[in-house]
Amino acid sequence: MTKGSSGQNGSSQDQVDHAQDVALKQAREPSSQSVTFGADKPLHLDAGLDLSPVTIAYETYGTLNEDKSNAILVCHALTGDQYANSTSPVTGKPGWWNRMIGPGKPVDTDKYFIICSNVVGGCNGSTGPASINPNSKQPYGLELPVITIRDMVRAQAMLIDHLGIDQLFCVLGGSMGGMQVIQWAAAYPERCFTAIPIAAGARHTSQNIAFHEVGRQAIMADPEWHGGRYLDQDTTPRKGLGVARMAAHVTYMSERSLQSKFGRNLQNREAKTFTFDADFQIESYLRHQGMTFVDRFDANSYLYVTRAMDYYDLAADHDGQLAKAFMNTQTRFCIVAFTTDWLFPPAESRLVVHALNAAGASVSFVEIESDKGHDAFLLDEPEMFDAIDGFLKSAHKAHGLPASGKEA
Amino acid sequence: MTKGSSGQNGSSQDQVDHAQDVALKQAREPSSQSVTFGADKPLHLDAGLDLSPVTIAYETYGTLNEDKSNAILVCHALTGDQYANSTSPVTGKPGWWNRMIGPGKPVDTDKYFIICSNVVGGCNGSTGPASINPNSKQPYGLELPVITIRDMVRAQAMLIDHLGIDQLFCVLGGSMGGMQVIQWAAAYPERCFTAIPIAAGARHTSQNIAFHEVGRQAIMADPEWHGGRYLDQDTTPRKGLGVARMAAHVTYMSERSLQSKFGRNLQNREAKTFTFDADFQIESYLRHQGMTFVDRFDANSYLYVTRAMDYYDLAADHDGQLAKAFMNTQTRFCIVAFTTDWLFPPAESRLVVHALNAAGASVSFVEIESDKGHDAFLLDEPEMFDAIDGFLKSAHKAHGLPASGKEA
Repeated sequence: MTKGSSGQNGSSQDQVDHAQDVALKQAREPSSQSVTFGADKPLHLDAGLDLSPVTIAYETYGTLNEDKSNAILVCHALTGDQYANSTSPVTGKPGWWNRMIGPGKPVDTDKYFIICSNVVGGCNGSTGPASINPNSKQPYGLELPVITIRDMVRAQAMLIDHLGIDQLFCVLGGSMGGMQVIQWAAAYPERCFTAIPIAAGARHTSQNIAFHEVGRQAIMADPEWHGGRYLDQDTTPRKGLGVARMAAHVTYMSERSLQSKFGRNLQNREAKTFTFDADFQIESYLRHQGMTFVDRFDANSYLYVTRAMDYYDLAADHDGQLAKAFMNTQTRFCIVAFTTDWLFPPAESRLVVHALNAAGASVSFVEIESDKGHDAFLLDEPEMFDAIDGFLKSAHKAHGLPASGKEA
Repeated sequence: MTKGSSGQNGSSQDQVDHAQDVALKQAREPSSQSVTFGADKPLHLDAGLDLSPVTIAYETYGTLNEDKSNAILVCHALTGDQYANSTSPVTGKPGWWNRMIGPGKPVDTDKYFIICSNVVGGCNGSTGPASINPNSKQPYGLELPVITIRDMVRAQAMLIDHLGIDQLFCVLGGSMGGMQVIQWAAAYPERCFTAIPIAAGARHTSQNIAFHEVGRQAIMADPEWHGGRYLDQDTTPRKGLGVARMAAHVTYMSERSLQSKFGRNLQNREAKTFTFDADFQIESYLRHQGMTFVDRFDANSYLYVTRAMDYYDLAADHDGQLAKAFMNTQTRFCIVAFTTDWLFPPAESRLVVHALNAAGASVSFVEIESDKGHDAFLLDEPEMFDAIDGFLKSAHKAHGLPASGKEA
């Protein structure tokens, strides 16, 4: 980032470089489990090409029962990873969905076998722009074809096949993860007993695309991006990626939460400095968000995952009629939205609910009163946990699963 | 900007350079009228310094009557200028508020003498960061003290004094212009017979500050910014300023207007290209907004005017009680807000209305149903024109002004 922010002096720069080395190493040799599909099993991309080899990095929690009927697939959001319930080797932080997953939690590790895989196009071990292109022996960079939500889900299906699982008891996730859940239910209805898309939609709106484009332009405007070939130059577009993260982060919070959390409070000072330093807490907070993000995420990956969301429009794949995507589905849906989420407002969730109703699907819609905006799905939202806990318990009965996967 | 956008090849680059030369010339020698106050009349800044000399560039329309009672001050928005009703020499475009100002228009040039001045800190002829610092003989850059909304208004008051006008019949403006209107009414109640702040508020919210900080960081992240000394280097942070404009522009439109204007429509193509080109109309539109902006606006000025808005908090200047700012005011207020404006939502206008009510002021509040978002104040909003036309006509009677300024 720029003046008023750290990371400029030698020592912290060393830490930064080290953090980026760790991130790059994980992108190519993840600490998590992974499976690589060779030339015999290429990933068919919407771009019209076959991608091969394809590595999918994933984590699992809990125990798969004998008839492999207790599996839950967790889909991560834009900059998430497979470490939903375990420590990330890149950040050293605990699992990003520890509140949702664990013994006695809604996604109960005593009952279920939980799988979370890094999306294709990502940077935590699954094939992405930082991976080595077998043809050039160099990082793909922008030579990796553009990846779509459907491609991500197709790759996940290959992983589920690899694990010998026919049907998932549940697919759930928030934001981009929720888009994947919706795509799973549309593409593989017979493989999803239940589906829980949270804070998501079946398309990206014009405003969503606009904010993503701002972020991409910020990255591409950074000369350190080098047309996507920055890894060859042993550099990274830190400033551009930081600005992209800052712009995106504002959209993850509600105006109300920003006002109540930061308001116009000053950052460690009694009065305004009449400079362009981070006088306000919100400025300091955003700069910090930008700076820490670049140490854990690959700039080209950011281009790919944002593009995947922008390209997603499930109705467009079905003559503009969203209901057609769910005809005769037996999947049980629980759609969750948050009142102050202006990135994926409840109205977008309702479009999915209406389509599911028109398709005669079993659907419950939970609109949760929350101040937290889009990020609510990652935070402590008791109403969300209760709703998902109740939904999964009743589905668990309906499915005839034993009380505990371990007992199976 | 970056790939997929023009302005990269020679010929269009020449046009760009020429446009920037024109802009820089206007910043220092405006085609409009201007007044320069010397060492005897410095501008007292909130930063605690005196600024001298201070030039204020302005345009006037209509005729000042004999008793100088028919003057209206129009305050421009963030990136606006003094050319509210005349062609800008920088862009060659007609006045930005031609719909509001003119013969028979709500701000009637047959009745009123209209003044519009470029804000201090701007880049259209009033003293700003592109102006020459008399001490260094170099452009100020960041050596210009941070300017506030109160400073801008103090400078406008010096201009009004210079024109020999005691009381303005009306002060009006939108967005940052509306902030200036509110500040005028608070600082010089006896000099404002009426005040019309549109799509504005008495403070900048945390979310407002956040978006401005994203823009500033985008500019400062551009190596062409050179710590603010880019003019010495005969360059300009085009890409950073373009990204800043793109981010800001999204906030000027409502989600509804973006969806209805662009939706997910593709730009001059049948299908997605599976690249990072501007596939979507909204991407192409934003890139264009960014590119054209850098040809007409100075990057450092953008830092200063955004900072001025962030710093504004009228209540904070009055023990946190906004009503105190308007005690015993005789000014007649007309507050205008738009339902889909999420940058200055009606709730922010209502805070001003409630404060005025508490202060026993004469106030009418017009909340206009519009899907145009914040930009509505610049667009064709018949309800806005009717409301302001009616308000000014009744104030005109109450003030005892003759039917036409020319007859005076």
